[in-house]
Order: sequence, then C-alpha cells, then structure tokens
Amino acid sequence: MDRPSLIDIRGALKRIESFIHCTPVLTCSTLNNMCGAELFFKCENLQKGGAFKIRGAANAVFSLDEKEIARGVVTHSSGNHAAALALAARWREVRAYVVMPDNASTVKKNAVADYGAEIIPCEPTLEAREEMLAKVQEGTGAYFIHPYNDYQVIAGQGTAALELCREIPGLDVVVAPVGGGGLLSGTALAVSEASPGTLVVGAEPEMADDAYRSLKAGRLIPVQNPQTVADGLRTSLGNLTFPIIRDHVQEIITVTEKAIVEAMRLMWERMKIVVEPSGAAPLAALLPKSEKFLGKRVGIIVSGGNVDLDRLPWGDGF
Amino acid sequence: MDRPSLIDIRGALKRIESFIHCTPVLTCSTLNNMCGAELFFKCENLQKGGAFKIRGAANAVFSLDEKEIARGVVTHSSGNHAAALALAARWREVRAYVVMPDNASTVKKNAVADYGAEIIPCEPTLEAREEMLAKVQEGTGAYFIHPYNDYQVIAGQGTAALELCREIPGLDVVVAPVGGGGLLSGTALAVSEASPGTLVVGAEPEMADDAYRSLKAGRLIPVQNPQTVADGLRTSLGNLTFPIIRDHVQEIITVTEKAIVEAMRLMWERMKIVVEPSGAAPLAALLPKSEKFLGKRVGIIVSGGNVDLDRLPWGDGF
Repeated sequence: MDRPSLIDIRGALKRIESFIHCTPVLTCSTLNNMCGAELFFKCENLQKGGAFKIRGAANAVFSLDEKEIARGVVTHSSGNHAAALALAARWREVRAYVVMPDNASTVKKNAVADYGAEIIPCEPTLEAREEMLAKVQEGTGAYFIHPYNDYQVIAGQGTAALELCREIPGLDVVVAPVGGGGLLSGTALAVSEASPGTLVVGAEPEMADDAYRSLKAGRLIPVQNPQTVADGLRTSLGNLTFPIIRDHVQEIITVTEKAIVEAMRLMWERMKIVVEPSGAAPLAALLPKSEKFLGKRVGIIVSGGNVDLDRLPWGDGF
Repeated sequence: MDRPSLIDIRGALKRIESFIHCTPVLTCSTLNNMCGAELFFKCENLQKGGAFKIRGAANAVFSLDEKEIARGVVTHSSGNHAAALALAARWREVRAYVVMPDNASTVKKNAVADYGAEIIPCEPTLEAREEMLAKVQEGTGAYFIHPYNDYQVIAGQGTAALELCREIPGLDVVVAPVGGGGLLSGTALAVSEASPGTLVVGAEPEMADDAYRSLKAGRLIPVQNPQTVADGLRTSLGNLTFPIIRDHVQEIITVTEKAIVEAMRLMWERMKIVVEPSGAAPLAALLPKSEKFLGKRVGIIVSGGNVDLDRLPWGDGF
C-alpha cells in the first residue's frame, strides 16, 4: 500500500464505523477565553478502549484478507495499541498475541487480557521486545501490526480528523499530539485533502522532542528513553510517519511537563472529561495564547483518557 | 404557572437552547455488560457550568418579563444552582445575588463570583439562609428563583430528558438522581408525555432517602442534615416537586454510599468522564443487575461533574 490518500481514509472510516464511536466534539467557553481562540475538542478519550488507537488497529485488522489473518495478529506495545489490537481481533474473531514488557502496568495487562489476547511477557527493552516479537511471529504465523509505522494504521487514525472536519467545517488549524506519529500523520493526510485551507500542527513534549528535531534537521533523529509524563508520546517517529509529517505538518510546538499537567487538570476541571497527559499536549500548546492562534478556529484531537486514577500527576501518589 | 406540560418543556428548550449545550449521549459496552442492560448516558456533567442546573436557571431567568427582572434575581444555594443562576443572569444582563453559607467551598464561591454575581455570606443553617434571603430581597427588590421548587426551574430541568427521548427513541426506563426533585420531576413530566411507554425511576442515597420515604408515606417527610457523599442530593423534596414525582415516577431506588463511590469511579475509568457522586447514583442503582432492568434500554441522566480533584472519594484526602 502507498501513502494513504483521502480515499483510503474514507475507506477506513467505512470499514470501521460500525464498530467504533463517532466521538463527540466538545467546546468550552472558559478554555476559549483562556486561549483567545475557538476550540473544538474531538474527544477520542471517549472512544472505545479510551483512545484513538482502535481506529488504526481495527482498520488494519479488517484490511487483511482471510489468508493473511488466518493465524491471527501480533504486536508489541505496553500501552493503548495493545488493548486496541486485542479488541479489533476479537471483533474479527481471530487470535491476538501481544508482546508486553513485564513492567507494564497491571491495569493495561488486564485490559489486554480482558479482550481475550494472549500476553507474552518480555524484558522492558526495545531489543528484547523485537526479539520476542520475531519469535512469536515465527512460532504462530501471526501477522504483525505495528503501533504506528503502518499505512493502514495511519489511515485508520486519520478517520478522527475526517469526522472532525465533516462536523466542524472551516477550521483554521488542527492540533494533534505526536509520539510515534501515527495520529499526527493520519490527521495531516486527512486534513490536507478534506479541508485544504486548514493547517496541521503537532504538539510534543519538550522531553521527547524527536519530531521537532527531526523536522528541523530534515532526517529522523529518535529520542532515547524519554521520561515525559505523557507516556503515549515517548516513542519516536517511524520511517513511514516522518515523511508524511514533514510534507503536511506546518509546525511542531514543544510543551513543558508542567504545561502538560496544567492543561490536563484544566480539561478535567472545566470540561469534565478524563484525559491522559498525551491528550492534553495540544491544549498545553495553545494556552500561552501565542499570536498565531488568536481568534482562530482550532480543532484539537484529544488522543486518550487512560490514566491510573490512584496515581494522578497532581496527587501525592505520583 | 401550573404544573408544566410537554408544551412548557418544549417552550423551555426553545428559550434556552441557543445558550446551553445539547449534551452528548454516551454508551459504554463494559457498563452494559456489567448491568445486563443497554445504557444511554445523557451527560449533563458536560453541560455549561458542569451540571444540568443551568437549564432550570436559564429558563426561569428568561421567562421573567422586563419588569419582574428589572432588579435582578436572588437565590440561596451552596452548590451548582448558585453558579447556574449567576451565569443565566449574566446572559440576560441583570444582577444576581447569591446567599451562600460561609463554609461553602472556595471553588464554588469563585465560580459564582467569576460569573459576576454578588455573594452574600450567611451562617450555614437553613434559618440563617432564609432570613438573609428575605433581607436581600427586601433591600434589592430582586426576584427569588428557588433551586428546585419552582415550575419554570422544573420545566427547564425537563429539557435534558426531552433531548434524550428525541435522540434515543424507545427507551424502557429513564433513571435520574433525586435530591430536591427538580431534575427528577422535570424528567418525569417530559418523559411521561414525550415517550408515554417509558418508565421513570429515581436514584437516591440511602442516607438521604426522603423521596423514598415520602413516596411510601404519601406525604412529605424531609431529612435533617444528611451526610451523604452525594452533596447534590442532600436536600429534600419540595411541595411542588413531591406531587409530580408521586404521580409520574414508578419507583425510588436507594443506594449505599459505597455503591455511589464505586459507580462514580467506574464512570471515570470506563467512560472517561468526570462525574460527581450525585451523577453516579443512577448507575449505582443499576449495577446490582436487578431483574427489572435486565435486557432493557435504560436512559440515565448524569446530573453533574463538579468535584474537587484534590479530594476524590477514593483518595487519601477524602
């Protein structure tokens, strides 16, 4: 498959829409005032599995033909993609294998197991993950679905922005968080074709600023083991997501840890939604009220809401 | 004004709909499975001001003629109604006076002050509140808008259920929490006419079970100073809300404190929405999977989401 076009993203939405939520777009006049802009929050934290990830996973799983998927699917992930793939595989009634670092949180392991996937533990290093993944692939014949560096996954993630552009026409900018780049690249592809006048901006933690630096350098510069509170944004761009972002994203804005936590808390308090730190990065990028957003209509992709309620970043347990 | 009819509730919605959010109806397959029913959550926690209260307050404020409202509006409330009335008064560009017990939380006082209302502190007793209210009324000539025992307020609160019945036809039951009864009575009036086949059930804390006991006895039996975690449900029914509930509500189900907190946490974790204890009472009533809801299509009015994030009922600070 080539780099997805709007036709592919529309096709993805058709393929998955009966399984997923068309998430609501929320507005909040207090946050509008604070940012000096009109904000439209596409709430993927209210998506099945609590994150946008099910869009890409479901599109990938349902794109495979009978033969390709006969022996199931496999991935490595410690986070939302693992649960999403497990759920999508259950919908398609095929097996799912998930290679998970043995220090992954119990909550996340339980979610994956609840959806009926088989968890294969490994050491918490990239090498151990990849080695174990290869072993499982060889042993089972399962089809590997990468968390973000996969065109069907990217097309699936783009469906959130497609829904947003359909519901709220005339946006000046869409801001999405960026980790591995699946969501941002899918968003950029969808917006650039579905709403050509709309700019796309990425929001990235300063502590995991590989996208910012890669775009500046014109080549992939991964980060090593970044410790940002935005656990969904610790991964680096892949060789498929980077060029899309380079070609279609206007700017990457980096945000501090403090700004992420403040934006997150504001969304809980003012919007009454549970958002994970990654999902608050775009608002963190807007709160300084920089000139470029003033008076603009800004779409925001709220990526997810999977947090441990006993360990909130403003609490004692953190 | 007489007891509101569907025409009044439709009129209320017309009057307020350009000011308020038509809140989303969310679903959650995990909670469906846990309750053995199909649940439709009408999310008034995502309403302006974080609660359904703005519906009643705005309808009351916009129902008054120029002369009645010339000297502003006044109420006594320590909670969501105070902020709602302040906001509605700002929309109508009239003064608002709020008599608030001096032990009300700073968060709530700030919300009221932010909306431009004048706060008049009083001792935290019902007598002191009413005395101060009379004094303010006399001194200012402001129009008193009761938090729930007022037909325009009741009609306004009924608009949430009206929106729900329009969006999700064919509900078997609608469950709403009950404190003073403004929301439950408005819901009952809206549902009984807009969707005659649909039953209405109230969910009430065991520790503040005046509606349960009043319905059983056939007369108003107020509770004295109940200490339930569901702070929005500590008030007792009024002489206007009680007969409506008696005539149109099928049943009041009482729920324990533990069940409320468990339901609340489940909604945060699974639905990714911030719900206050009062808003979780209906789910608490459904979680025991009692026979009467099995396989039913159940609408739930999630009343609000105003909680202190530093003092969650499952945290240490509580």
